[in-house]
Amino acid sequence: MEIIQTIAGLLEAVRRNKPIVHHITNYVTVNDCANIALAVGASPIMADELEEMNDIVSIASALVINIGTLNRRTIESMVAAGKRANERGIPVVLDPVGAGASGLRNAAVERLLSEVKIGVLRGNLSEIRFAAGLESLTKGVDASEADLARNEETAQQVAERAATKLGCIVALTGAIDVISDGKRTLHIHNGVPQLSGVTGTGCMCSTLIGAFCGAKQEGDLLLAAAAGVAAMGIAGELAAEAAEGKGSGSFHIAIIDAVSRMDSELLASRAVIEAAAL
Amino acid sequence: MEIIQTIAGLLEAVRRNKPIVHHITNYVTVNDCANIALAVGASPIMADELEEMNDIVSIASALVINIGTLNRRTIESMVAAGKRANERGIPVVLDPVGAGASGLRNAAVERLLSEVKIGVLRGNLSEIRFAAGLESLTKGVDASEADLARNEETAQQVAERAATKLGCIVALTGAIDVISDGKRTLHIHNGVPQLSGVTGTGCMCSTLIGAFCGAKQEGDLLLAAAAGVAAMGIAGELAAEAAEGKGSGSFHIAIIDAVSRMDSELLASRAVIEAAAL
Amino acid sequence: MEIIQTIAGLLEAVRRNKPIVHHITNYVTVNDCANIALAVGASPIMADELEEMNDIVSIASALVINIGTLNRRTIESMVAAGKRANERGIPVVLDPVGAGASGLRNAAVERLLSEVKIGVLRGNLSEIRFAAGLESLTKGVDASEADLARNEETAQQVAERAATKLGCIVALTGAIDVISDGKRTLHIHNGVPQLSGVTGTGCMCSTLIGAFCGAKQEGDLLLAAAAGVAAMGIAGELAAEAAEGKGSGSFHIAIIDAVSRMDSELLASRAVIEAAAL
Repeated sequence: MEIIQTIAGLLEAVRRNKPIVHHITNYVTVNDCANIALAVGASPIMADELEEMNDIVSIASALVINIGTLNRRTIESMVAAGKRANERGIPVVLDPVGAGASGLRNAAVERLLSEVKIGVLRGNLSEIRFAAGLESLTKGVDASEADLARNEETAQQVAERAATKLGCIVALTGAIDVISDGKRTLHIHNGVPQLSGVTGTGCMCSTLIGAFCGAKQEGDLLLAAAAGVAAMGIAGELAAEAAEGKGSGSFHIAIIDAVSRMDSELLASRAVIEAAAL
Repeated sequence: MEIIQTIAGLLEAVRRNKPIVHHITNYVTVNDCANIALAVGASPIMADELEEMNDIVSIASALVINIGTLNRRTIESMVAAGKRANERGIPVVLDPVGAGASGLRNAAVERLLSEVKIGVLRGNLSEIRFAAGLESLTKGVDASEADLARNEETAQQVAERAATKLGCIVALTGAIDVISDGKRTLHIHNGVPQLSGVTGTGCMCSTLIGAFCGAKQEGDLLLAAAAGVAAMGIAGELAAEAAEGKGSGSFHIAIIDAVSRMDSELLASRAVIEAAAL
Repeated sequence: MEIIQTIAGLLEAVRRNKPIVHHITNYVTVNDCANIALAVGASPIMADELEEMNDIVSIASALVINIGTLNRRTIESMVAAGKRANERGIPVVLDPVGAGASGLRNAAVERLLSEVKIGVLRGNLSEIRFAAGLESLTKGVDASEADLARNEETAQQVAERAATKLGCIVALTGAIDVISDGKRTLHIHNGVPQLSGVTGTGCMCSTLIGAFCGAKQEGDLLLAAAAGVAAMGIAGELAAEAAEGKGSGSFHIAIIDAVSRMDSELLASRAVIEAAAL
């Protein structure tokens, strides 16, 4: 399958080009994001002070904005970094953690989407629904059960509608992952339920997307997003095997292990990606 | 023993109700707190910006305030979140990390105790002694050796006096854990010395208490605090077995593993809790 | 070898004296720094609010300043803490993470070096070169490949010139580690390439240096720096063995394991240190 070969090639490009991925992210999962970036072959930078955003973004190949523990100060840094990334033409990944859970988050996401050209928006069903201005019932930072109760077709519809409305790639992750640019839509069938038992697997997925987006200039962001989501799902599968019977602490560590050991052949052989029927 | 059965039932309630536990906490151990919350079955949120405290606390079942890396900005968020939690009647757990080590911490703890109704105060002997305005010799963020040199009866007296004075549950953790509301006092004999060789085991204990406090409306906070302390101690025991001969990094991971695998039967069979003689 | 015996003795002193090492550090690797400090036998404090710097530094035996995720607020805390440490005569370790990557970092390092007497400056080749005002080509927070392409003699020259110019110990870590006070120079041949695949191994090294510097009053900081660098390198070697075939997540945990199990005999038997020819 051509998509699979492209994705496998992107992993090789990450390892070869070691893209610098600048993160403005939360302090809960930042260590995991840095380590998974290194594991996949990228070079992470984490910095959030407004005054250095211009300098740091100027040496980066991709920018990941994650609003997990946003505050007034860092929101300004996010906007400034995003604008600089747009000027330079490097891709911006936005992870709207907890969108819908507070007015501050809502306003920040709305502002980022209006002032910064986002390349890939990655979130769960509730977060994507909110970010696209679709109705949602968010419960904290996890996808609400009310949202999850709706069916897979809904996830596809939400991803496609959000992508069309926002003009970016949407990577909606959950039991089944849906990646869409509004016209092309991919379903990814990798992953395990244990991924929701560790904090930051969504954040790490966004970091992987950032690494794949930064691996090549002028690459297809839909496939870069799919590569990140597939790599995360496969890492979860491998980690579940490695940590079988141990628990969520060991599973957490095994995720990083799996990404660090992943090569393009493994990625190609395990990725389960299908183009969605329109 | 009735207490044991109640505590075991609380673990089932956490798993069933998945309480949202909002944390305003330090950036040192926040990842462990989020992961242990998930491991026990709760849904953690970590957020600290004043402007969103009202929204976030409004969807939470419990609030954990941990002053480990407090600053001027987050102190205001702690107070605001605490007040909102009080309005909603959800329990507030306060972890006065390093109380006594600086004037800023002293003032913050005093302010939190005066402006917010605290449900459970969890700390080591030095921290509790300070928070209750009893004399103490604090050395950094660990219980001072001078304090530890005093005997177990002292820990009980400190917990009881602090609980009576502050009108809340006090969970004083150390070689022997003492939980008291000033009238009822429990001793918990779980745990291993290795727990003090990993940062954040106190913070994680406070998170577990938050999860158990949030599991049921109108529950008995004394027993919820005992459940959190017992679960942490048992996790330490199991982790010490699992990481035997490996070191403190593996022990750290094994703590999370143990909580994620813990069920009510295991908790009931391993918890060693006795009511203290008055 | 006398140096080795002194270093081994320093490890015993850390375990015996449990020095409090105050950190103002980044939120990416802070948990690892706290855990490696505990593993080596020190007592870590992490705090960054200006108002409590005086109190906290007053109970510390060493101060570690790490600018990884600096901001306007914490820069002031770093300067204040450094000045207080100088007043008390306790050693200050500076880790100029990402020096050269932004004007803000440049200005912060310059200010710290001019307003605070630094005991040990630890960084990679690019960071040290920048901090000493030597020309460099920095790419993000890792030593630039252009810098690394130069030879080992260069690392020694840079360390010696930087130490002479700045009047402090320079610990330049990389494929080969060079420690110099401008007159005496040591090469340390421990470590494994995998150390660069985990975030924070540089930060953890700075923490270990802080612990060794704080172990004894009036100790030789050159040897304390060498002890920290050697301990980190040996931990990497042991971790590589323990995590053989597993991946970078397991290697990360095994680093902490190795430090927690390290004793003075192991340190003495594995440290490969040579005095550099002048």
